[in-house]
Amino acid sequence: MNLGPATALTCRECGHSRELGPFYACAECFGPLEISYDFGGVTRAAIEAGPRNIWRYRGLLPVPGNVAETPNTEPGLTRLVRADQLAESLGLARLWVKDDSGNPTHSFKDRVVAVALAAARELGFKVLACPSTGNLANAVAAAAARAGIRSAVFVPSDLEQQKIITTAVYGGTFVTVDGNYDDVNRLASEIAGEQEDWAFVNVNVRPYYAEGSKTLGYEIAEQLGWRLPDQIVIPVASGSQLTKIDKAFQELIKLGLVEDKPYRVFGAQAAGCDPVAAAFKAGHDVVRPVKPATIAKSLAIGNPADGPYVLDVVRRTGGAVEDVTDEQVVEGIRLLARTEGVFGETAGGVTVATLRKLVESGALDPSAETVIINSGDGLKTLDAISSQVAPSANIAPSLEAFRAADLA
Amino acid sequence: MNLGPATALTCRECGHSRELGPFYACAECFGPLEISYDFGGVTRAAIEAGPRNIWRYRGLLPVPGNVAETPNTEPGLTRLVRADQLAESLGLARLWVKDDSGNPTHSFKDRVVAVALAAARELGFKVLACPSTGNLANAVAAAAARAGIRSAVFVPSDLEQQKIITTAVYGGTFVTVDGNYDDVNRLASEIAGEQEDWAFVNVNVRPYYAEGSKTLGYEIAEQLGWRLPDQIVIPVASGSQLTKIDKAFQELIKLGLVEDKPYRVFGAQAAGCDPVAAAFKAGHDVVRPVKPATIAKSLAIGNPADGPYVLDVVRRTGGAVEDVTDEQVVEGIRLLARTEGVFGETAGGVTVATLRKLVESGALDPSAETVIINSGDGLKTLDAISSQVAPSANIAPSLEAFRAADLA
Repeated sequence: MNLGPATALTCRECGHSRELGPFYACAECFGPLEISYDFGGVTRAAIEAGPRNIWRYRGLLPVPGNVAETPNTEPGLTRLVRADQLAESLGLARLWVKDDSGNPTHSFKDRVVAVALAAARELGFKVLACPSTGNLANAVAAAAARAGIRSAVFVPSDLEQQKIITTAVYGGTFVTVDGNYDDVNRLASEIAGEQEDWAFVNVNVRPYYAEGSKTLGYEIAEQLGWRLPDQIVIPVASGSQLTKIDKAFQELIKLGLVEDKPYRVFGAQAAGCDPVAAAFKAGHDVVRPVKPATIAKSLAIGNPADGPYVLDVVRRTGGAVEDVTDEQVVEGIRLLARTEGVFGETAGGVTVATLRKLVESGALDPSAETVIINSGDGLKTLDAISSQVAPSANIAPSLEAFRAADLA
Repeated sequence: MNLGPATALTCRECGHSRELGPFYACAECFGPLEISYDFGGVTRAAIEAGPRNIWRYRGLLPVPGNVAETPNTEPGLTRLVRADQLAESLGLARLWVKDDSGNPTHSFKDRVVAVALAAARELGFKVLACPSTGNLANAVAAAAARAGIRSAVFVPSDLEQQKIITTAVYGGTFVTVDGNYDDVNRLASEIAGEQEDWAFVNVNVRPYYAEGSKTLGYEIAEQLGWRLPDQIVIPVASGSQLTKIDKAFQELIKLGLVEDKPYRVFGAQAAGCDPVAAAFKAGHDVVRPVKPATIAKSLAIGNPADGPYVLDVVRRTGGAVEDVTDEQVVEGIRLLARTEGVFGETAGGVTVATLRKLVESGALDPSAETVIINSGDGLKTLDAISSQVAPSANIAPSLEAFRAADLA
């Protein structure tokens, strides 16, 4: 078993460590396990000489050193877009959009799945599986097809039709479940207990899987010229992405790859599924589960596994967690598209709308350099805006019709 | 006016040259104009040190040297996927898929639009416009939004709903026209004659626009380690992409950036719009227009402007032009998804299905290294496969239901 620089699994609650393996819950306290590492010497030059995808950071991930040689979807190194027009419309001095819609299946999930797949192979699993709100389904089905192994994907049956077709096309086992995401997630845990060859990427392989989100943090720092932003706004579903970007920043500081400086981390949720924002605002350490009701289905996790750790990061760095209405989400999608030519999915709309709200409330410093994450693609959530946008005109194919429509 | 290494516009029919400017037809013979260059010394090292997008090739394009500093969508440097499983299923020794669905609006059109926008700015145009079968509409609307200028996009009113919404979201002028693409194209030419500030990227700025497709050829050669493939299969709509990839290969040879070696270029069309394939098979030099009837709408150009030049390239290199039925297109989409985890649009399905047909007929050498182009994204042509793929099962959220469905 070769998992690169990974050395152990350590409980995030009680700190108990155990050997690497197919484990995800602490044997002592049932807390979630997280990867520990011995990085040795990782340099900027070695990273920059690596592949043009997440494997340039393989020395910082629980994967074998030759991971790039095995068929995979090669996600990552997506655009960091300097967003001057969006900044101007919101009154910000300097803003960047990390546009993860450029990944192979057009969401950040390709990152975590690629790491999970690499680790699952080493751990001896035969099937790549997941419960999903849609993006993860696409990513798992595509990655398994590319790797030549079986996939088994479980989604709520009310998912966007786009995400259903985009998963089914890859030809794996694909099951719709009559329930919400939390129901599907519970079922996946039960199946994982029975099917020992099945790697549910976000359940029994979760400690490995979650590390993939660190690559978002590494890329942002590298693309800024090896430095950290002052502020970052990150969508919160399970909360894992936010905590892992923070972990990446901390690792880069410890390794001396970026200068140590303060940064503030902000979380973004939809008002229809805002358990972490509610806990933050109420000053609680515990996150009370909610029943999701929002168009932002990729964020509709009512019982977020990493909610408490999100609160820790946000409070430690002086950030906040805010939530926005579905109407604001749609306006956020349209604002990002109009100003920067980036068509984000509903999660991107949540993040842009939250950015706006944080600026207006004064929680976010408009003069400080800010990065926001667009984690997915508008093409997968067309239903959210299809009634809101339309062509300017429909005309007959003649110059007279064009003139009559007064479009010049 | 700074158009980098571009020196003149030269007629592809009569060879007459004129100065650079907003011209697209020869004043002598009305033939199409093409950019001529003085490249000076372009090195592999200079390219490799450039941005991680098409602007690394700016020294080979009609754009200013500082083009990367102006807001643009930063397309290009998409994945070249080693497709061993697809190769095996078709009986090929060595196959690569150039996956252009990774571009910002998920088709190769982002490349040509980025070059057209850069040139249009230098030429003094104020509006970025186009007639489109859909992908170009997305690309123009996004690029104009990002650049902070007005767009004016014209599409057939029967376009896929996905492409309609994905264009409308960017907030420019967007007109649906009751007619097919050739009708819309004719209307655009008429409008271009009246609106002198409007750069119709594929009409009056076409000589600049078309050069953007060369970057596909440059990238394939660079990603193969600075060498050319033995065979390449390219979808044919107007035919411009195919002729420009060939032009790119020829330029790389002349500049000494790759070794001079024979390569064969193949064109792929849908049987429902096969004017170039029909001309090739009949041994004609002239392409007779057809009325398109195919699910591959992004290739549905019945009167392809570069058809005769496609025939020239294919015959010169010992290739062929082949066409496939809509059923084969759907099977091509599914085969690519199942074997490589790449969900292409109908044009990608046309290319994969044509590859299969060329192997089966013996026109393509199965032992030679082959590259195929996936020019767009399956998410934009879901209608083509939505009735063909479906989940394996729908179950209640319980372990009993999972067991009863016999999915393990």
